[in-house]
Amino acid sequence: ARTTVIVGGVAGGMSAATRLRRLDEQREIIVLERSREVSFANCGLPYHVSGVIADRDALSLQSPERLAARFRIDARVRHEVVAIDRDARTVTVRRLDDDATTEIAYDELVLSPGAAPRWPAGIATDAPVHALRTLDDLDRLMADLDRVPADGAVVVIGGGFIGLEMADNLYRRGLGVTLVQRGAHLLPSLDEEMAAPIADHLGALGIEVRLGRVTTAVGIDHVVLDDGSRVRADLVIAAIGVTPETALAAAAGLTIGAGGGIAVDALHRTSDPAIFAIGDAAEKRDAIDGSGRLVTLAGLANRHGRAVADTIAGDAAPSRPALGTAIIDAAGLTAASVGWTERVARERGRDVRVVHTHPSSHATYYPGASPLSMKLVIDTADDRILGAQAVGTDGVDKRIDVVATAMSAGLAASALADLELAYAPQYGSAKDPINMLGYVARNLASGDDRVIQWHELDHELATGAVLLDVRAEAQLAEGTIPGALWIPVESLRERHAEFAGRRVVVHCRVGQGAHTAARLLSELGHDVVNLDGGFLTWRDGQRARSLAELPLAA
Amino acid sequence: ARTTVIVGGVAGGMSAATRLRRLDEQREIIVLERSREVSFANCGLPYHVSGVIADRDALSLQSPERLAARFRIDARVRHEVVAIDRDARTVTVRRLDDDATTEIAYDELVLSPGAAPRWPAGIATDAPVHALRTLDDLDRLMADLDRVPADGAVVVIGGGFIGLEMADNLYRRGLGVTLVQRGAHLLPSLDEEMAAPIADHLGALGIEVRLGRVTTAVGIDHVVLDDGSRVRADLVIAAIGVTPETALAAAAGLTIGAGGGIAVDALHRTSDPAIFAIGDAAEKRDAIDGSGRLVTLAGLANRHGRAVADTIAGDAAPSRPALGTAIIDAAGLTAASVGWTERVARERGRDVRVVHTHPSSHATYYPGASPLSMKLVIDTADDRILGAQAVGTDGVDKRIDVVATAMSAGLAASALADLELAYAPQYGSAKDPINMLGYVARNLASGDDRVIQWHELDHELATGAVLLDVRAEAQLAEGTIPGALWIPVESLRERHAEFAGRRVVVHCRVGQGAHTAARLLSELGHDVVNLDGGFLTWRDGQRARSLAELPLAA
Ligand SMILES: Cc1cc2nc3c(=O)[nH]c(=O)nc-3n(C[C@H](O)[C@H](O)[C@H](O)COP(=O)(O)OP(=O)(O)OC[C@H]3O[C@@H](n4cnc5c(N)ncnc54)[C@H](O)[C@@H]3O)c2cc1C
Ligand SMILES: Cc1cc2nc3c(=O)[nH]c(=O)nc-3n(C[C@H](O)[C@H](O)[C@H](O)COP(=O)(O)OP(=O)(O)OC[C@H]3O[C@@H](n4cnc5c(N)ncnc54)[C@H](O)[C@@H]3O)c2cc1C
Ligand SMILES: CC(C)(COP(=O)(O)OP(=O)(O)OC[C@H]1O[C@@H](n2cnc3c(N)ncnc32)[C@H](O)[C@@H]1OP(=O)(O)O)[C@@H](O)C(=O)NCCC(=O)NCCS
Ligand SMILES: CC(C)(COP(=O)(O)OP(=O)(O)OC[C@H]1O[C@@H](n2cnc3c(N)ncnc32)[C@H](O)[C@@H]1OP(=O)(O)O)[C@@H](O)C(=O)NCCC(=O)NCCS
Repeated sequence: ARTTVIVGGVAGGMSAATRLRRLDEQREIIVLERSREVSFANCGLPYHVSGVIADRDALSLQSPERLAARFRIDARVRHEVVAIDRDARTVTVRRLDDDATTEIAYDELVLSPGAAPRWPAGIATDAPVHALRTLDDLDRLMADLDRVPADGAVVVIGGGFIGLEMADNLYRRGLGVTLVQRGAHLLPSLDEEMAAPIADHLGALGIEVRLGRVTTAVGIDHVVLDDGSRVRADLVIAAIGVTPETALAAAAGLTIGAGGGIAVDALHRTSDPAIFAIGDAAEKRDAIDGSGRLVTLAGLANRHGRAVADTIAGDAAPSRPALGTAIIDAAGLTAASVGWTERVARERGRDVRVVHTHPSSHATYYPGASPLSMKLVIDTADDRILGAQAVGTDGVDKRIDVVATAMSAGLAASALADLELAYAPQYGSAKDPINMLGYVARNLASGDDRVIQWHELDHELATGAVLLDVRAEAQLAEGTIPGALWIPVESLRERHAEFAGRRVVVHCRVGQGAHTAARLLSELGHDVVNLDGGFLTWRDGQRARSLAELPLAA
Repeated sequence: ARTTVIVGGVAGGMSAATRLRRLDEQREIIVLERSREVSFANCGLPYHVSGVIADRDALSLQSPERLAARFRIDARVRHEVVAIDRDARTVTVRRLDDDATTEIAYDELVLSPGAAPRWPAGIATDAPVHALRTLDDLDRLMADLDRVPADGAVVVIGGGFIGLEMADNLYRRGLGVTLVQRGAHLLPSLDEEMAAPIADHLGALGIEVRLGRVTTAVGIDHVVLDDGSRVRADLVIAAIGVTPETALAAAAGLTIGAGGGIAVDALHRTSDPAIFAIGDAAEKRDAIDGSGRLVTLAGLANRHGRAVADTIAGDAAPSRPALGTAIIDAAGLTAASVGWTERVARERGRDVRVVHTHPSSHATYYPGASPLSMKLVIDTADDRILGAQAVGTDGVDKRIDVVATAMSAGLAASALADLELAYAPQYGSAKDPINMLGYVARNLASGDDRVIQWHELDHELATGAVLLDVRAEAQLAEGTIPGALWIPVESLRERHAEFAGRRVVVHCRVGQGAHTAARLLSELGHDVVNLDGGFLTWRDGQRARSLAELPLAA
């Protein structure tokens, strides 16, 4: 029988192993895993810190014993693969318990070694700094956390997914948390104005968020930031990103891609046809422009694990390029995204249309509706959806999953208007927020509507436009944009002569009333643009710049 | 200026009016509405009965005054259109307050009169029977409900969407509720085995569900059923379906479709090019086979209202055929569906593959996951998704919306496996339930897996197959299928000689473990099929038949 050796026994590796067994009962399947456990829920690790997942063993989904009994898989923990001999088709394996080294021959080799946490610079000896990747890491972290006093202080370095999850769970544990983020906003998968409410939400809970800062030193009881400030830290979490584990592959002469991961084709084959790579270590092809890209998500690792088993068993089907749909529970506020941000799209030279909306999670006449903040990034050239973002407490996951499905199927932005989504007042609206994105997109595509973005307002006003606030009187208490002329929609027919001859930027709370106003003014002969996303998006944009201590201009 | 007259001032009609105003400031727009209010939330009416929507006026979204001020729309309530003169292009309107009749000339006429509730046979004079369609109906119902004693008894006739919502809200009001349903199961938009848990759920709350029964008489304090039983009823709700309001159109000689609604083209134009029809009164084209079909859903009425305004304003774009995505909160259990049921697909002669799954709403290692029951109906000929159903307490709306999007975009069932859906453990699984449906569908399409349905088991056993239960020992307590041989997956490699030479039907709790077992047995040379959906679907099927007092065979 043939032998398939798999390096890494978690998301990608173990998915490959189980599927391969289902397709081929005869093959030898050997899984080599460096840590003490296989098949654990990486994504659940942060929640044990707070006790939300109280039982540590709930995170262990399979054991070598159960995998042997059910799947006849030979899974060996505390076994590290240290070299690949491509000519001999063997791997060198070190047994970590006794440092014994053996060679194992393979017919096919699958690499799913994942990605290693990066460490900040300037770590002092014995500094209590942790990164979270495996159950072993969690066990070490929990032991150290037990030594932190109940009113202790922790610093989390890094404001991406894992950093936010750790900050949240350490906060829920009752500790004082400071979150240090190098970038100007949290969560690089969002644009700045979408991320601003998250920093405010964490701040309101009492988590200290430091944006645009890096740590320069990590001591045994403090960290030092690049502005010279010193923050007490009984424990430090490093969550500044991960590096794909390419060393083994590179040492064996396999091609590493421009994005930094092991280069593979659509069948997950490396530059050596007997070696496959999947998961966080392997480079993905971006679904929008086909570029090489790292996407470290469990769904892709699991899926590609299964796909590689199909290929090995002789039923190859190419995998699709990656959209990178991602979601996080940021201390009660959900943030999700798919595809490109506006920033990435502009960096890659795309001419984009941008839509911001602030709908309700379901019909407002039914109790319990909560606000959503949504963003759609559209290619002006062909109405293609390049990306979407959503933030809110309810219904965020649903809306992003629908957009991800639409993107995957190649639906244009305007086509979102036509989706027949399930409506009863508990779940959505007769025109679901997704349909509304489609309507707004369609109005932009047809030229019926023209908009400016929050960061373009100052320029418009400087070049002579009048800013018209068409909200109802009761809404003004929420705040106003300096310099705006207030005329509610209902009074426009009478009063529009007041700004005759001037270009008009119209705004309301979210953009919807202003759309009706803009259509009316346009019909009455005015040169009018709508402030996309209204007062709320404008305010979030201002807030993003002030949180980051950045100038307001575009 | 041209004049557009709109009959019916709620979902379809008013959506047409507002959009038309945005596109054309000059046009006269007259909306004629028979009831006392326009723009009310039909879909919210049932929830005022329980007080879930406490404020009755929250259901009134717009008033004629506000529509005049904001949109310059001339909306006239208590005005009924009684005739259309197509040659003269006028409508005859009766003002209900004084019975005065006038003629109004139109350039374009839009019919959105909705659908009228059907009434059961044998209603006695002064019987307290109500149907719910307008705010006027709600006001009358609430007045009558105030006369029902606190421990009163009500009968709801009809087990469709409105019947279930009314039963739920009357129950929440504290009344004793009997729900009488003509069909063999609740909710005709589901198949019987999917609907069975809903009847049980209502029953567990104390709602008396009578399936396969019709009322033969409605008296002043009781109803009589066709089995002769007499049920006390201080108040009766008729929710046995609706009839499209086609009388006006038919009297004017407009074509009525084979499905019973006003016939329209994809631009919502009737057989008279100056007259358009939308909403519940207009026939839809079915998205799967293009047949004429009634689909009485708010999303379509709103969307087609907007579309007809575009056509009238000179920017016509054909509407898409209808999938009929629908959802209901059945007293805390959500049920949703899209497309065709298995029953409809078979009635229409399709050869179908059916998939049942019972996944968790999110990763089971994270607290709060709840069970889902899902069903996918697939055309064997081309792997096309014909329909989907889901029932559960959480995440049902999301999954059905994703399938609706996939169907709308023409994705095949197998393609669901590749969707990149947002995953963190609070929201889903690394392999989301949608992906799993895709995997199972793909295994069936490739021929790797073969399944039988719950209603085919008796036939298999009668013709000599052995039934193999591969569940873990702890799962047996949930119940067993008579005659099954119990061998857990882990013991199959040793014990499979016990049933050598016989066809094997393998089952587990939900189908997933049995899939691994079936693959193994198939690799070992057995003729094996999996019982689709496992013990749970089999049990739901049995339960459906026993609730309906029907024989078990297919
Ligand atoms: C704390 C945390 C939270 C996360 N949350 C989410 C989330 O919510 N949603 C999401 O989509 N993704 C999440 N992820 C990412 C997700 O877990 C990864 O994308 C996924 O696990 C990658 O799978 P993989 O097989 O490539 O690597 P892994 O699952 O990390 O497995 C790789 C394994 O290979 C082993 N290994 C490495 N080198 C060797 C070697 N030379 N010899 C033997 N063994 C080796 C490692 O010990 C490791 O256990 C999270 C990750 C972490 C760490
Ligand atoms: C209780 C209830 C709950 C519902 N729940 C949901 C749900 O959760 N989800 C969902 O998608 N759908 C739901 N619906 C269905 C949804 O409300 C309808 O599909 C939608 O309102 C149809 O829009 P329409 O414009 O065709 O008709 P309607 O909104 O009913 O408006 C038609 C109006 O026309 C008026 N009219 C009729 N004839 C004349 C005439 N000759 N002259 C003047 N006026 C006339 C009527 O008085 C009526 O107000 C529900 C319906 C009801 C009754
Ligand atoms: C769990 C793990 C061992 C994989 O096991 P697996 O048996 O391949 O996968 P699952 O348990 O998800 O089951 C999927 C299989 O069940 C099948 N299935 C699911 N529901 C089914 C049903 N109702 N009927 C029939 N088959 C069904 C699927 O088709 C699939 O089989 P296939 O691959 O042969 O098509 C591996 O993914 C793992 O180690 N995961 C933990 C680590 C991880 O994923 N971390 C990141 C997330 S926290
Ligand atoms: C409410 C009602 C009067 C329609 O009013 P409307 O102004 O056309 O519709 P909405 O309030 O939904 O707003 C939709 C408009 O806002 C626009 N819009 C939404 N969000 C926007 C944003 N952030 N920026 C710009 N425009 C936005 C949409 O593009 C759309 O305009 P368009 O049609 O010109 O493209 C009508 O639907 C009605 O009477 N509904 C009640 C009855 C009913 O629907 N019953 C069934 C459900 S219970």
